[in-house]
Amino acid sequence: MTSPAGTLETRDMVFPAHANHHGTLFAGQGLERMARAAFLAARDTAGCDVVMAAVTGVQFCAPVPVGRALALRAWVSRVGRSSLTVCVHGLAQAPGCPDELALQGVFEMVAVNAHGRPTAIAHTYLNTPPHPFRQETP
Amino acid sequence: MTSPAGTLETRDMVFPAHANHHGTLFAGQGLERMARAAFLAARDTAGCDVVMAAVTGVQFCAPVPVGRALALRAWVSRVGRSSLTVCVHGLAQAPGCPDELALQGVFEMVAVNAHGRPTAIAHTYLNTPPHPFRQETP
Amino acid sequence: MTSPAGTLETRDMVFPAHANHHGTLFAGQGLERMARAAFLAARDTAGCDVVMAAVTGVQFCAPVPVGRALALRAWVSRVGRSSLTVCVHGLAQAPGCPDELALQGVFEMVAVNAHGRPTAIAHTYLNTPPHPFRQETP
Amino acid sequence: MTSPAGTLETRDMVFPAHANHHGTLFAGQGLERMARAAFLAARDTAGCDVVMAAVTGVQFCAPVPVGRALALRAWVSRVGRSSLTVCVHGLAQAPGCPDELALQGVFEMVAVNAHGRPTAIAHTYLNTPPHPFRQETP
Amino acid sequence: MTSPAGTLETRDMVFPAHANHHGTLFAGQGLERMARAAFLAARDTAGCDVVMAAVTGVQFCAPVPVGRALALRAWVSRVGRSSLTVCVHGLAQAPGCPDELALQGVFEMVAVNAHGRPTAIAHTYLNTPPHPFRQETP
Amino acid sequence: MTSPAGTLETRDMVFPAHANHHGTLFAGQGLERMARAAFLAARDTAGCDVVMAAVTGVQFCAPVPVGRALALRAWVSRVGRSSLTVCVHGLAQAPGCPDELALQGVFEMVAVNAHGRPTAIAHTYLNTPPHPFRQETP
Repeated sequence: MTSPAGTLETRDMVFPAHANHHGTLFAGQGLERMARAAFLAARDTAGCDVVMAAVTGVQFCAPVPVGRALALRAWVSRVGRSSLTVCVHGLAQAPGCPDELALQGVFEMVAVNAHGRPTAIAHTYLNTPPHPFRQETP
Repeated sequence: MTSPAGTLETRDMVFPAHANHHGTLFAGQGLERMARAAFLAARDTAGCDVVMAAVTGVQFCAPVPVGRALALRAWVSRVGRSSLTVCVHGLAQAPGCPDELALQGVFEMVAVNAHGRPTAIAHTYLNTPPHPFRQETP
Repeated sequence: MTSPAGTLETRDMVFPAHANHHGTLFAGQGLERMARAAFLAARDTAGCDVVMAAVTGVQFCAPVPVGRALALRAWVSRVGRSSLTVCVHGLAQAPGCPDELALQGVFEMVAVNAHGRPTAIAHTYLNTPPHPFRQETP
Repeated sequence: MTSPAGTLETRDMVFPAHANHHGTLFAGQGLERMARAAFLAARDTAGCDVVMAAVTGVQFCAPVPVGRALALRAWVSRVGRSSLTVCVHGLAQAPGCPDELALQGVFEMVAVNAHGRPTAIAHTYLNTPPHPFRQETP
Repeated sequence: MTSPAGTLETRDMVFPAHANHHGTLFAGQGLERMARAAFLAARDTAGCDVVMAAVTGVQFCAPVPVGRALALRAWVSRVGRSSLTVCVHGLAQAPGCPDELALQGVFEMVAVNAHGRPTAIAHTYLNTPPHPFRQETP
Repeated sequence: MTSPAGTLETRDMVFPAHANHHGTLFAGQGLERMARAAFLAARDTAGCDVVMAAVTGVQFCAPVPVGRALALRAWVSRVGRSSLTVCVHGLAQAPGCPDELALQGVFEMVAVNAHGRPTAIAHTYLNTPPHPFRQETP
């Protein structure tokens, strides 16, 4: 679709199947959704398959009640030789309510080849030095 | 996020949990994903809760193997007094492959109030007549 | 079991895992269940594997609250050279309540061989002309 | 639909989501499906809600590979004052293969009222003595 | 981890996704969880893969409301030439409440080789005869 | 069961339903399982309900193929006035293979009252100063 490579927007409802016993999104479900968004954003940029190497940090800012939509925006903030950093923000949305920041996180992904081994990422605007004297930081 | 109200883009991976015994997205899973996208697009435009009244038609154009992403774009094509028509297109995506149209469908949604009864949709650019002499067709 | 080939009856409960935020069966879940029933009815008649080609139409007639059973009846209404039409009706059921028609739909299925390519369906009472002068309509 | 009260037939596919690491139906999934069938058969006969009190026994007779349908037949074999015994048989089915008995089990269910307490089951042909001199065994 | 081979402890929350329409753990979910615990306990002791052959019996002692944790303890009580018996107890747990026995069951498992055929279980302290001069090999 | 409060051991199989398109545990599933273990360990220690406030960090050390068990050990490493830190380690296990460290993470949890507001944690051996002159660091 029209999103630039490396930025992903996705949305899904919070239904009882995703909730804890308080009727709000279970944190583990929030993490799973962020992981899927981070995976897709990284794969787009890398142009090859990726795996998650680490979660740098996630904050849960507000509970998301059943009936809200959770809109996730994931974007690649750094491209190294074979690794990428992806930021994910999540907004809780409902008709007639202002959007509310519900969760945010940073994920480290690694580009892999068909054997699951780390592989170099082809040059993109993020890992191509803009000037011959400036060196890429790995 | 930045999509205009009534247009929704969402993406998710096709994993074995979503597959049939041929290793491709089960049609029922494709319908469930389209239904969620149609729901969100309609709710955005209506500014209130909605329910699905009917599926006008869905075509499955190509199988979506496990490992592909399925990107859905849903947009509201008609807004009546209390009903909306939503179109959904789905593209199968993988690194190094051109996107492939995998499924498309048309859904009829109805705006509902807190009691689940049909309710009028506030005027939008789609259901507001552009000229005093032109009457909205319900 | 004893149902004639091409007619399928199946039933399952509506639990919170299948519900939207109103405590009723989410439409996407209803579609997934109908798709599974249509698949099984078509496979029985075709005598080989099938895939879904299209949804001709689905109507959601009444919400199905959590705690109801959803009984689906699927039957093959047309058999062509390699395609089949399947009708599905769904009734909401609960002790002490009359059954209520909740959803109905029509699905187009295609018989496929081991490579996933369309294949001819062996003659059945539905696609065998009852008289030598009557031609099968494809 | 047309099954007599207390007999239930239901069918569903075995997909990768239901499989163990050998590509066959995970036993726990088989038990969950049998439990749902037993629940529905008992509720039909009791005419009120029921809960599972015990599993008397289950045999797994043959593995069910992904791609098979699992057809379950459940029937009430005994109705006591507030309890019911349900038998469930499961057949693995695939086009061109003879049906194969895959699992069978016996479940004890208890009729409950709105507070979840055991309640008497209204007379049915199974717990009504066919003759005044014959006493029901509880 | 540190549990002796053949004893397994596992715990998981009861969330709405696992509940029936009364807001308590659906019996079928309880059976699925017990089956997974029995599988793991048997595989540990057998030192090879196992399949479930039968459920000898399960009792549901108390409903488990959403919001409780279900703690399962599974242990191997008998090791034969190629079969094992596993007992499973389940406790419902919540802060400030005494643990409550919710379910218990007995399962028969069979050790299988890579082709899914029954295979002999290497000697363990449970299937090695307790002869005074013979030392158990750990 | 016998684990000390604040330490939790849990195990579950990796089945196709939990896998990505490489046949290994999807990272998002790994995060969800760690979140459930962290939740249970924190709730045990706090003696009241808890919510996840943040993920401090998670490392994915090795892929976990379908057919492995994933054993999680979660323990509370810090108890503050109303917050707790939980560490989680995950081992991949299979018969005849040495256990392999697959994932590890640190989670911040907050004790909440019935209204979902932060609440003080009753004194435990972890947040009770061992000496009157030593102050707890929040």
